[in-house]
Amino acid sequence: MTSLPAERPRAWAPPLDTAPAPASPAAQALAARYGEAASPPEIQWNDVIERLLAHRSVRAYRPDALPAGAIETMVAAAQSAASSSNLQLWSVVAVQDPERRARLAELAGGQKHIVQAPLILVWVADLARAHAIADHADRPVEGLGFLESFLVASIDAALAAQNAAVAAESLGLGTVYIGALRNKPLEVAKVVGLPPHAFAVFGLVVGWPDPAAPPAQVKPRLPQAAVLHHEQYRLEPQVEAATQYDDTARAFQRGQGLEPTGWIASVLARSRSAASLNGRDRLREALETLGFPLR
Amino acid sequence: MTSLPAERPRAWAPPLDTAPAPASPAAQALAARYGEAASPPEIQWNDVIERLLAHRSVRAYRPDALPAGAIETMVAAAQSAASSSNLQLWSVVAVQDPERRARLAELAGGQKHIVQAPLILVWVADLARAHAIADHADRPVEGLGFLESFLVASIDAALAAQNAAVAAESLGLGTVYIGALRNKPLEVAKVVGLPPHAFAVFGLVVGWPDPAAPPAQVKPRLPQAAVLHHEQYRLEPQVEAATQYDDTARAFQRGQGLEPTGWIASVLARSRSAASLNGRDRLREALETLGFPLR
Repeated sequence: MTSLPAERPRAWAPPLDTAPAPASPAAQALAARYGEAASPPEIQWNDVIERLLAHRSVRAYRPDALPAGAIETMVAAAQSAASSSNLQLWSVVAVQDPERRARLAELAGGQKHIVQAPLILVWVADLARAHAIADHADRPVEGLGFLESFLVASIDAALAAQNAAVAAESLGLGTVYIGALRNKPLEVAKVVGLPPHAFAVFGLVVGWPDPAAPPAQVKPRLPQAAVLHHEQYRLEPQVEAATQYDDTARAFQRGQGLEPTGWIASVLARSRSAASLNGRDRLREALETLGFPLR
Repeated sequence: MTSLPAERPRAWAPPLDTAPAPASPAAQALAARYGEAASPPEIQWNDVIERLLAHRSVRAYRPDALPAGAIETMVAAAQSAASSSNLQLWSVVAVQDPERRARLAELAGGQKHIVQAPLILVWVADLARAHAIADHADRPVEGLGFLESFLVASIDAALAAQNAAVAAESLGLGTVYIGALRNKPLEVAKVVGLPPHAFAVFGLVVGWPDPAAPPAQVKPRLPQAAVLHHEQYRLEPQVEAATQYDDTARAFQRGQGLEPTGWIASVLARSRSAASLNGRDRLREALETLGFPLR
């Protein structure tokens, strides 16, 4: 099989009167990702890095089928990611059935792209396999009851999913992560038939971007100075970096025809209270019910 | 800048008397990843997928410096990964100082590659930034105390790190994740100066593979039939799949000149007890000390 042409990224940049024409594909990609002012001066560049930097979450899909073998390709990429001590404590449930997708969309707060796209991959922190292996061998499983085992399984699932997302985008497909599956963990577990000791960490919608919708744009991120530390973490520059980024976020929102609410407001809104977590303040209780005592 | 040539993968395959010559690069990559018997029949193929499937963890490095801008390149790739609600609840500390790397190697149980390679990236689940922003605005932070916020930060860090790893490998660099930083979370936090509400989830060693060492091989994984489920999770095939994979793991270990202990034994050993977690049975207590009440 040969590779399919991928949709070309469309760079976002601040208003033209402040932004000189970018000099190279790397500079253009960095301007889209950080805004002109906050771009790192120089990076390495190749086709893989170009694709990684061009990522956008896609929230409008056409219903067309995926290429043959696309699921197996994403899973092969996912299994090629590192796995802690090679324990492979994750699984993935590929949900294509329209009714099941509709139910997941509803549980995730009505996200229509779960219904539009032909596939949602439900990524599972999977201690059920280890439990089954140990039960079969009549061996103890005390270690699986600790927070550490849950965390390893969740991180393994995330590394795997990200490789799957990169593979999907290399085929020209769009993706969007669905953290809102954690709003209703017990109900999601029922929809995809999870046994005890298995937890749906998040979903990943995969499909062809809808050409009739406005193309998804590269979303600007915090300046590197905020997230990248050398030798020692520095807390002092965080508030100033966030304030600088708030302006970048507002400029981006204006460009998207959105209310320019900025970024800091969204951090404050999510951090505020138990209620601001959309039900996920009960995650620990749900995990205990699902067989994760998190000792 | 132009891309650097990457080391070519060397495929692993079962003994020759059972394995016909692979027919294509895709078939060869799948045989290395799964063994001949368990390979999926058909996948999509392009340069990105080829690179993802060729991943091997590298544990022998030469001390040479990274290419100019390599850290900024990896961080730009990392920041281009999806972030839950764009909250960007992660940071990364780039540790190059030899003494600090030696200290981290020691805390991670004496992993010499942390000393050999010029860089370890310490990935941080970072609620300290959100705390600082909320403190500055004199706003409440109840939501940050929940397990959900810790999990979002850890997953965000993992998605970011995996993009960084893919970017590094695209430059011909080798990587290996260091989960053992979680053996001593409080000590690691001190080494990289983490403030309260920040936790080093794992490390990622980055450097040039040592050409004098035996080249790292693609490690075979569980058959797709074990990790990929359609519509509903199936527990029944897990033990048989693990048993089949145990043979694949033994064949790989023999090919590496290692004791053919298989895979099931390692799952049983890790699952067994609190003591088998190398100190990580105290992770929850450590996280409370670091400012994560995990409600």
